[in-house]
Amino acid sequence: GTGADNDLYINQAIVFIEDAIQYRSINHRVDSKSLWLYRWYYSRTCQWILSLTITIILALAFIEKPSSLTITSDVRYRPPAWNPPCGLTESIELLCLLVFLVDVSVKSYLVGWEEFWRNKWLMAYILTLIVSLADWMVSLSYFCREDVRIRRILRPFFLLQNSSMMKKTLKSINSTLPEMASVVLLLAVHLSLFTMFAMLLFARTKDGQQDKEWVRYFRNLPDSLTSLLVLLTTANNPDVMIPAYSKNRAYSIFFILFTVLGNLFLMNLLTAIIYNQFRGYLLKSVQSSLFRRRLGIRAAFEVLSSLKETPANAQQSYVSVGALLQVLQKVEMDARCKQAIMRSLKMCSCDQLSATQFQKLFEELDKDSIKQHPPSPEYQSHFLQKMQFAFGHPYFGYLGNVVALANIVSICVVLVMDADKQPSERDDFFLGAINCFFILYYLLEMLLKILAMGLQRYLSYPSNIFDGLLTVILLVLEIATFAVYGFPHPGWRPEFMGLLSLWDMVRLVNMLIVFRFLRIIPNMKFMALVVTTLLDLVKNLRAFAGILVVVFYAFAITGIMLFKGAVVPLGNASVGRMNSWSIGQTTLMTLLSIFQGKNSLFDANAFYCLLYLLSVHMICRWAKIYFVAWWLISSVIWVNLFVALLLENFIHKWDRRCHREPISDIEYQRTVELMFRDVLEEPTEEELMEKLHQHPHLQLCR
Amino acid sequence: GTGADNDLYINQAIVFIEDAIQYRSINHRVDSKSLWLYRWYYSRTCQWILSLTITIILALAFIEKPSSLTITSDVRYRPPAWNPPCGLTESIELLCLLVFLVDVSVKSYLVGWEEFWRNKWLMAYILTLIVSLADWMVSLSYFCREDVRIRRILRPFFLLQNSSMMKKTLKSINSTLPEMASVVLLLAVHLSLFTMFAMLLFARTKDGQQDKEWVRYFRNLPDSLTSLLVLLTTANNPDVMIPAYSKNRAYSIFFILFTVLGNLFLMNLLTAIIYNQFRGYLLKSVQSSLFRRRLGIRAAFEVLSSLKETPANAQQSYVSVGALLQVLQKVEMDARCKQAIMRSLKMCSCDQLSATQFQKLFEELDKDSIKQHPPSPEYQSHFLQKMQFAFGHPYFGYLGNVVALANIVSICVVLVMDADKQPSERDDFFLGAINCFFILYYLLEMLLKILAMGLQRYLSYPSNIFDGLLTVILLVLEIATFAVYGFPHPGWRPEFMGLLSLWDMVRLVNMLIVFRFLRIIPNMKFMALVVTTLLDLVKNLRAFAGILVVVFYAFAITGIMLFKGAVVPLGNASVGRMNSWSIGQTTLMTLLSIFQGKNSLFDANAFYCLLYLLSVHMICRWAKIYFVAWWLISSVIWVNLFVALLLENFIHKWDRRCHREPISDIEYQRTVELMFRDVLEEPTEEELMEKLHQHPHLQLCR
Repeated sequence: GTGADNDLYINQAIVFIEDAIQYRSINHRVDSKSLWLYRWYYSRTCQWILSLTITIILALAFIEKPSSLTITSDVRYRPPAWNPPCGLTESIELLCLLVFLVDVSVKSYLVGWEEFWRNKWLMAYILTLIVSLADWMVSLSYFCREDVRIRRILRPFFLLQNSSMMKKTLKSINSTLPEMASVVLLLAVHLSLFTMFAMLLFARTKDGQQDKEWVRYFRNLPDSLTSLLVLLTTANNPDVMIPAYSKNRAYSIFFILFTVLGNLFLMNLLTAIIYNQFRGYLLKSVQSSLFRRRLGIRAAFEVLSSLKETPANAQQSYVSVGALLQVLQKVEMDARCKQAIMRSLKMCSCDQLSATQFQKLFEELDKDSIKQHPPSPEYQSHFLQKMQFAFGHPYFGYLGNVVALANIVSICVVLVMDADKQPSERDDFFLGAINCFFILYYLLEMLLKILAMGLQRYLSYPSNIFDGLLTVILLVLEIATFAVYGFPHPGWRPEFMGLLSLWDMVRLVNMLIVFRFLRIIPNMKFMALVVTTLLDLVKNLRAFAGILVVVFYAFAITGIMLFKGAVVPLGNASVGRMNSWSIGQTTLMTLLSIFQGKNSLFDANAFYCLLYLLSVHMICRWAKIYFVAWWLISSVIWVNLFVALLLENFIHKWDRRCHREPISDIEYQRTVELMFRDVLEEPTEEELMEKLHQHPHLQLCR
Repeated sequence: GTGADNDLYINQAIVFIEDAIQYRSINHRVDSKSLWLYRWYYSRTCQWILSLTITIILALAFIEKPSSLTITSDVRYRPPAWNPPCGLTESIELLCLLVFLVDVSVKSYLVGWEEFWRNKWLMAYILTLIVSLADWMVSLSYFCREDVRIRRILRPFFLLQNSSMMKKTLKSINSTLPEMASVVLLLAVHLSLFTMFAMLLFARTKDGQQDKEWVRYFRNLPDSLTSLLVLLTTANNPDVMIPAYSKNRAYSIFFILFTVLGNLFLMNLLTAIIYNQFRGYLLKSVQSSLFRRRLGIRAAFEVLSSLKETPANAQQSYVSVGALLQVLQKVEMDARCKQAIMRSLKMCSCDQLSATQFQKLFEELDKDSIKQHPPSPEYQSHFLQKMQFAFGHPYFGYLGNVVALANIVSICVVLVMDADKQPSERDDFFLGAINCFFILYYLLEMLLKILAMGLQRYLSYPSNIFDGLLTVILLVLEIATFAVYGFPHPGWRPEFMGLLSLWDMVRLVNMLIVFRFLRIIPNMKFMALVVTTLLDLVKNLRAFAGILVVVFYAFAITGIMLFKGAVVPLGNASVGRMNSWSIGQTTLMTLLSIFQGKNSLFDANAFYCLLYLLSVHMICRWAKIYFVAWWLISSVIWVNLFVALLLENFIHKWDRRCHREPISDIEYQRTVELMFRDVLEEPTEEELMEKLHQHPHLQLCR
């Protein structure tokens, strides 16, 4: 019937507008039941359950068998790790996999049969689930004693497929791969040619004294390759050239040439290439988000215009204001935006909306949410007004900064004086008294500011919240200290009492004071710029970080599987650090340090090659390949991607800063979309309509 | 008289055109005698003498006293360095200083009195000379036994002031300094806050077992600062966190946070800032060069138009073709350009040139010099024609590459097989025979190519010259080997004869063969792009490299002076590498390795702090400051500048590659100016005339 049709149209419009708000694709089924399922699937609860499931399945690795999450990492001191009984982690895993099974079924149903076959991500999802379930069954049939668990390496895929941002980023990275591969090939050619040169230069000679270089670094092809590869990461520089250099200074030319060509030119070329590829990446991604938003709004307009209540108009389609109001009431969106749209709908006196008007109405979504700070209280008393003026003035804030700096300096002085003292010789009186004074000042500052600004206005500034929270914590700590240890006096060295020793309390207070000093950041222009850039960057980097987590997880699991049992704790301490590590965390740590510093490749190798002598055969070579792969992916590719994004973000920000003065009173609340607003292109009507007519499930009348 | 005036005008025009060709400023004296002096000063001989003098004065450091340029750097084995008698280096130095004195006088005279006072570079030049001469006299009066020689540190200034490119670059770097200083300040804040945190976290505890972290890295404020600074260079990562990490895994959060914030964010922010500042640097510099060229040409036009022989024309000034021809004959310029200008002058039938025509005539200077390859010989014989077709075909070149690759592979196989063998066990027969065959093939290839292309065409390709030269050298080496050691046969192991042993000869041949393999580069598209980018970069980087040399030289000399006598050679070998170095070269090496790898800061420090225990007091702290300064300048600032320039160059190149297909037959001969031709703006007539009227010595009639 017409009523049912109308209901359907209304529901479609609701879903399309929600799609537009969330930048989702509108290519899903649009019949009544599917719409209900769609809204249920994308409801907050469902998505939250899905995220939780992904977190749980990823976190399982921390309690599963080869891992050993204990406080200390020292094999000699730590208690045996808790070993979950067979079936515990497995049943949690099964639950998670079942949730994913439901997820993939709903997703596949919603996109429809035709789309499903074209969607490689969904296919891969199903395949991953099948393999995981099969592996799970194998696991149970061996009573959890099987050696290899493929499903663990597959786990990060669940994280990957759930984020459209990450999929998009992966596609971008994928398109950069050919160029990156060229440079990596170039690096390989560079490396192999120089290896041959090195083997010819540093060959074995008759005089045993003269061929130290050969003995240590260029004994055979794998050794030579490793030496030069590690030189490329600058880890063994300048050690690798010392023997040759002390024989003849001219040998250093070889190493300098290698480093300059490889490290300075080729490595930075990789940065250049990745930056060049990613220059337009952010803009393109924001542009496509904009297109999705406009498309969703337009789709909503089209279905609303086919409502039977609107008078048929040959030239142009219209949407009645009533229908739109009906839709708006049911749409889930930001309350502020909804109110703004309602308001402008009421202000417009017409009762029919054209497509342009409709689109314009929803531009509210793209706007900055300008945060209005509540007004300061208006005091009657003259004295209070003066107080308000004095303590609401920026100079009062600066005074606070100066006091905080003084506090930091006093802590620093005490630290320097106490650095070499025995704990029993320390006198905590001075620091205790001084900190007590400063914390009282902080409390006073907070109260006076609240008096001047009113509580609501005070809390509307994030810097004040940061400040106030820390002040309250400091106050509580200080009161607790006095309650347990009494007031400070000369020679104040009480014994251990309660949860924390006095010394620990004082340290904690000091750390919080140092942390509180960060409140100066917004007062320094350049620092504020840098910090906002970094915060923006963090927003834009979420997808990259996600992919990094995925790769990191897969590598860590592979590492745990490869090097399981390679660490044999020895009673003898002479092997030192080497055997004092435990396996799961060793892998994590090693990966992390390679990623951070790119210079531990060599250490890691030496580490595993020592283990190789101790216990397992062939692991040394595998370790080499494994660590080189990780070095390439994390340190070379990911870090360069990061630099490219940072350059992109920073240069945009910098240009904007030069163009216009920041309006200091308006809070900074920009999204990536807004950063590019000036350069974005609005999609044309034709593009939108063409895309709409390609919709696999929506049949438009016209 | 008029004739003398005319001669003056002609001479002025000649000098202005030469200024335009060399992109020099035209703001110099323009009377007859000054012009003669100017042309003499900028003549090739004079400039060559000046460059030679600068090279000599810089090279003096290698033979002066604290230096010790011997083949080995090992204090134990090397002979005592040659100690030049007092007065030898000093008299060379005096000669050089006198040349500089002449240079500065001529320069000062030529720019004129008014300009001189405004020119800070000239003032600094004179000051440097005065200080150097005074220091020289002090030196002689102490009979070369004085401790400090200030003039040595000043020497690189002579290099700096002689290059306008370097001066311009320095100005650019100077304008970037405020932003860089902000980031460095941020880094300092980051470092100091984290140091305080670290000192509070890793304080001394009562249990001696538990405070390993404190003992090793955070004993007091300087230690903590150093530990974290070195962590910023990633040199002591992950060692610095191992003790804390094995106590409690959570401590790693502190180090990860520090590294991510400092190393990943702040350091890369520096790259971003420097890149942002240098984005327009190349373009701006090329633009100002273009302006100088146009200005020189315009100045020549103006002086020529005031020649008395031209009919006075109220509206527009003209230059007669005859006068221009007269000027052109005397101008020193590229012969090809001169011919091209003469030709177009003859083709233009007019005998008067307007300013536009005049300017257009000299646009020949901006053009690509397109290198025409001589034609191949035309053979009459049908057989020769077929040969020509076969061996002139690119496939023949590819075959040559395949053969070179096969040669490389065979050498590699032999190297791998022989890697562990004693020199006495080695059988050189196989490699000797194989190389003999390959070298014969290379010879044949060269001859056939010459047959197909003709000698002239063959030599017109740089790749062929590279190829042919190496082939000839290989042939000579091979013939020499056979002449001395006879033909190879199984068990061919002759004893040492002549200059080089057979083994050395074979190694040399192999190295040359590996080097010859680089001929494949132009055949691979991406490689060719990268290599041309790098070559361009090298051209643009000359100024940067010069500044680096200046800084490096100053640092090295300071280092030599600071740490003189710090190395005490010990008979005992247990101190190992530490005492086997010599002072001058140690400093150079250390600086070099910090520059290359940024991870030797720590080593260098440890090195000098060991020396500190051995001999000199207070040197350890100085060494720290010295190396941190060098690390900041070289590794942080210079490397980032380099990355910025590489990005700039590469992105321009890449964009151009995408825009148009390269014409493969025309040799690549571009200058920086040509790379930007599409985006350069021509200066307007008004700008040129305004600048001309500001000329301090030229009085234009109109």
